Amino acid sequence: MIIVLQPDATEEQQEALLADLKARGYGVHCSRGVERTIVGVIGTPERDKDGLIEHFESLPYVERVIPILKPYKLVGKAFRPEGTVLNVRGVQIGGGTLCVMAGPCTVESAEMLLETARFVKKMGAHILRGGAFKPSTSPYSFHGLGEEGLKILQEASLETGLPIITEVMDTRDVELVGRYTDIFQIGTRNMTNFSLLREVGNTRKPVMLKRGWASTIEEWLQAAEYIASQGNYEIILCERGIRTFETYTRNTFDLNAIPAIKELSHLPIFADPSHATGKRSLVPAITLGAVAAGVDGLIIEVHPNPEKAVKDGPQSLSFEQFGQLMQAVRPVAEAVGKRL
Amino acid sequence: MIIVLQPDATEEQQEALLADLKARGYGVHCSRGVERTIVGVIGTPERDKDGLIEHFESLPYVERVIPILKPYKLVGKAFRPEGTVLNVRGVQIGGGTLCVMAGPCTVESAEMLLETARFVKKMGAHILRGGAFKPSTSPYSFHGLGEEGLKILQEASLETGLPIITEVMDTRDVELVGRYTDIFQIGTRNMTNFSLLREVGNTRKPVMLKRGWASTIEEWLQAAEYIASQGNYEIILCERGIRTFETYTRNTFDLNAIPAIKELSHLPIFADPSHATGKRSLVPAITLGAVAAGVDGLIIEVHPNPEKAVKDGPQSLSFEQFGQLMQAVRPVAEAVGKRL
Amino acid sequence: MIIVLQPDATEEQQEALLADLKARGYGVHCSRGVERTIVGVIGTPERDKDGLIEHFESLPYVERVIPILKPYKLVGKAFRPEGTVLNVRGVQIGGGTLCVMAGPCTVESAEMLLETARFVKKMGAHILRGGAFKPSTSPYSFHGLGEEGLKILQEASLETGLPIITEVMDTRDVELVGRYTDIFQIGTRNMTNFSLLREVGNTRKPVMLKRGWASTIEEWLQAAEYIASQGNYEIILCERGIRTFETYTRNTFDLNAIPAIKELSHLPIFADPSHATGKRSLVPAITLGAVAAGVDGLIIEVHPNPEKAVKDGPQSLSFEQFGQLMQAVRPVAEAVGKRL
Amino acid sequence: MIIVLQPDATEEQQEALLADLKARGYGVHCSRGVERTIVGVIGTPERDKDGLIEHFESLPYVERVIPILKPYKLVGKAFRPEGTVLNVRGVQIGGGTLCVMAGPCTVESAEMLLETARFVKKMGAHILRGGAFKPSTSPYSFHGLGEEGLKILQEASLETGLPIITEVMDTRDVELVGRYTDIFQIGTRNMTNFSLLREVGNTRKPVMLKRGWASTIEEWLQAAEYIASQGNYEIILCERGIRTFETYTRNTFDLNAIPAIKELSHLPIFADPSHATGKRSLVPAITLGAVAAGVDGLIIEVHPNPEKAVKDGPQSLSFEQFGQLMQAVRPVAEAVGKRL
Repeated sequence: MIIVLQPDATEEQQEALLADLKARGYGVHCSRGVERTIVGVIGTPERDKDGLIEHFESLPYVERVIPILKPYKLVGKAFRPEGTVLNVRGVQIGGGTLCVMAGPCTVESAEMLLETARFVKKMGAHILRGGAFKPSTSPYSFHGLGEEGLKILQEASLETGLPIITEVMDTRDVELVGRYTDIFQIGTRNMTNFSLLREVGNTRKPVMLKRGWASTIEEWLQAAEYIASQGNYEIILCERGIRTFETYTRNTFDLNAIPAIKELSHLPIFADPSHATGKRSLVPAITLGAVAAGVDGLIIEVHPNPEKAVKDGPQSLSFEQFGQLMQAVRPVAEAVGKRL
Repeated sequence: MIIVLQPDATEEQQEALLADLKARGYGVHCSRGVERTIVGVIGTPERDKDGLIEHFESLPYVERVIPILKPYKLVGKAFRPEGTVLNVRGVQIGGGTLCVMAGPCTVESAEMLLETARFVKKMGAHILRGGAFKPSTSPYSFHGLGEEGLKILQEASLETGLPIITEVMDTRDVELVGRYTDIFQIGTRNMTNFSLLREVGNTRKPVMLKRGWASTIEEWLQAAEYIASQGNYEIILCERGIRTFETYTRNTFDLNAIPAIKELSHLPIFADPSHATGKRSLVPAITLGAVAAGVDGLIIEVHPNPEKAVKDGPQSLSFEQFGQLMQAVRPVAEAVGKRL
Repeated sequence: MIIVLQPDATEEQQEALLADLKARGYGVHCSRGVERTIVGVIGTPERDKDGLIEHFESLPYVERVIPILKPYKLVGKAFRPEGTVLNVRGVQIGGGTLCVMAGPCTVESAEMLLETARFVKKMGAHILRGGAFKPSTSPYSFHGLGEEGLKILQEASLETGLPIITEVMDTRDVELVGRYTDIFQIGTRNMTNFSLLREVGNTRKPVMLKRGWASTIEEWLQAAEYIASQGNYEIILCERGIRTFETYTRNTFDLNAIPAIKELSHLPIFADPSHATGKRSLVPAITLGAVAAGVDGLIIEVHPNPEKAVKDGPQSLSFEQFGQLMQAVRPVAEAVGKRL
Repeated sequence: MIIVLQPDATEEQQEALLADLKARGYGVHCSRGVERTIVGVIGTPERDKDGLIEHFESLPYVERVIPILKPYKLVGKAFRPEGTVLNVRGVQIGGGTLCVMAGPCTVESAEMLLETARFVKKMGAHILRGGAFKPSTSPYSFHGLGEEGLKILQEASLETGLPIITEVMDTRDVELVGRYTDIFQIGTRNMTNFSLLREVGNTRKPVMLKRGWASTIEEWLQAAEYIASQGNYEIILCERGIRTFETYTRNTFDLNAIPAIKELSHLPIFADPSHATGKRSLVPAITLGAVAAGVDGLIIEVHPNPEKAVKDGPQSLSFEQFGQLMQAVRPVAEAVGKRL
């Protein structure tokens, strides 16, 4: 932590600051330039940092406080430089494979889900996605089948052997959803729902943490740290687009986040080209781009009849489109040394 | 709802679309221009709209669907053109008064809260704020005193007569917090926590809904509609700054939102200059600007000793600063015809 | 300047860095923490800084470089703490007065401009605005009357005595526009047109520099520094809204920028509520808010018949609306101690 | 164009609007719903559109005006559905090839440029980049060698046979730069410098138009329309990252823009991974991602000694890194059917 003093900080103020720091047990380096005095603080214990930064920033004679270390540790690269590899009922995530999760936005019925599950499996997908509890901007929209949807997912999993991933939105549902799903999904709207993060952190099931639509990479990793801090290290990050001024697409897919996460964290990173674009016609290009940039996996919306989808029809691929995309993904994955 | 067809939509596709619309009971106006055919759909029932828009956008021969009506109704201006006025234990909110909520970010102890409560009351504040459950970007930061904090708030309220407002973050805590607080606060991070919105919607206590840091005004009103749709119309909106590329301030205070809410909704609108800036030195100017632009109230962080604040010290006002600000607010409120 | 080394930087690399810094004549403070080594560099000459920061950031063993001093000097607060006051043909700008510039977006004809000039003068405006060269997103829109428009402005100025402000967009037009106008306006789209900034910096006429719609406050001040670095210190800053994800308004008026500029710079700061909102109905509230937050002046679009305006009709006030607004501004200006 | 009336628009107002539209020669469809009346306007001549939209939006009884057609024509997909292919001194751009432009940010000396030109040619690059006129946020930074830099570029081009691309920033320099360069580059800061766009539109040399850092895809295409409207159709678009709230990277590379441009325009689209990230370590992943997503070319900063680069060192690749990247690009390009 570095503390930059105001140009008009007095001698007394500087002395008081140094005394305070020493009393807290920190080492101190004070460097008096012509225009500013800068205090280097050594040995800040990680856990106190947030509070300390705010404390020193509150002092009237402090211009700003600059943290030096990252505000996360368990999910940081240094914690496990070789990278995290998960095994979800035989499906490997991370470690040189490309994992494909596919399925409808929402579980609408047993028939449509089974039909989709069989098809995506045949095309090479590894995990089945489908929503039973659905967030929705409007209170009057469909919010999912709830536990009935979970049962249908389980059925489809039993028949096809595909593990499943489904979203949980309420701390009170974590236990219920956990009875059915193989992977919890935390949606973009709940990335800063800290109670929920802690609750899934208390389970020992893998969690896919989608990036908040207006969250920085650092905040995203701090959200992952919430989960890890409860003892659950089985975390998958998923870039799903962020909010910008652009209106042609639903979100802006932040491709930079893929290599950035690779250099900052040991966690696997996925892409969600469906939400990142909101437009079916753009999904293939974004999928291929994400694979070439190094993602560990994909999560893609597929529907037997997108025009009749209850939700997210405009961004869902038809079976035919998904089949073609899987064909196109293979050579790109190979070109960057990934096993599909 | 207006449906714009792709330039290459065939006659058959147009006929199919019109037939579909008529079968659903809608009136249809079809206008064939030189380059595009446009279909006006009349009589869309409000509740189906979200699903319908996605349905029609999913059709391969549809270029885009343009909603005409707002996606909220209960919180829309037309629902109650005269404006909503709340009465919280004798304190009027809306309707020409300027209501000031003040207090520390976090309840740290009974002493500091009482001291603050007495002071802000003396300076003319109407409601006491203070956090017992605190969201925090880092899992290692302080998260509030919990129920103990609620009890301290109640005590301070009993002594000073000030009603209280405090944040609730977890659906499981709504009942507990509701036993102590006069107003629920939903923080920016939970504006899209739809389970929580519904839960406070099921109570009959007033709710202050802060704007999500990356939420449009329309999404904010839809979040309010979640609460109202459960039967709770006692809602206060609060602009607390949005996220932009600017880094000098913690957020960007969106002043436009004040008159925009006034023309779109009947709900009272507050400003939170503390979070909107993140910098104590900017709080007075933003407070005065918000008052002149027409807010119904303010929520301001005040701390007996900001340098020792557990959280949000850099944006908290000292007693002296809050006293001076209240002095400065008075003539501006009068200049725009508000009673403080 | 502070240089943070990578955790794996070797002894030799550190030595090389320190030797390099000393050879350049800098003082050096090296602080070796448990996880990072941090090098404080003292005595960085202002002018070299940009290049140096990039140089050190390019080193493979450097994690990041943190500048300590602001990247502008002539326009910084410390350069003239008492604040800059301009005098434009008898009109004072800055120093406790509130200066109102008003007029149409575009000079459409001599009649409409004269009519507007007379009216805004009567209502108390101090300076007449009007565009002769107009930027336009579409190449097919109207681009202004050019020199004819300048002549009309001059005529209106002669008759009413109001000084004029008009935009210049091309380095080749600076001489021509300078023959007619009292103040150059640099539009938001040209805030980073550095050739143009230098060109108006070479004149000795006042320049209003609008903030780039996606420029930080720091970049804005650096753009002002371009003008000042040529010897022209007669600069007025103007906040006109920035670009965000919000779509209800044309831009987001960044109220925080008003007090922020006041603490960072000595230059007068204006607000443009017309462009900041893009909606006539929001202009009054933003105007009052800006005045209460401390602006030194306003620039407002007024048109005798907004429905017939060639450009910016939706955000232009009618005569009646402008008259009412001036009435409303007065008590707010007084409430914050400004002379109108 | 569709005009949505205010709910309280009177019969007379509606009649006046319809009469106005008919007098202008438009066809009109009027659809009266329960809550809104909507007027479809048919036959809007493209060129008048901007003005008309503003005109109708200015009417007090109009809620909003919705344009149906795109505000650009010459650069739109429909104008040349087969796509534009350029030939720059034997180098094909567009049409199934992947074109690589490489070189230093700035021409620093004849030696370094020649060394770089020879190396990038050997590695398979097709065009040499290098700045002679450099934009810079600070007035005190290096601004390029000017004409001397142009001469050095020409020399390197003569020796290696590589065509060159270099930036032009001032309308007054277009003639000069045009004497030396094969392709004009318009930088992100000048995307809305309309005078400059028109000036290069008046030449018959290819122009690379970088996206403005806060410009929508539609505005970018309108800027391209400026160039095309002067008769110069030899335009290359270049996505170089947009500005968001993310601070870890210099910009956010908008991958969605690649397929979006492919569906909206016939112009070739390039990626600039150097500026898109600002970090050398992220350049390879973004390059591969852009290629897989379908770009027609790349423009990459390469420097013989990035640590000594005058500008943009942190994002420049060393020779070794560029050589490795070209190796990695080849199989990805092949996987998506592009010839390198």
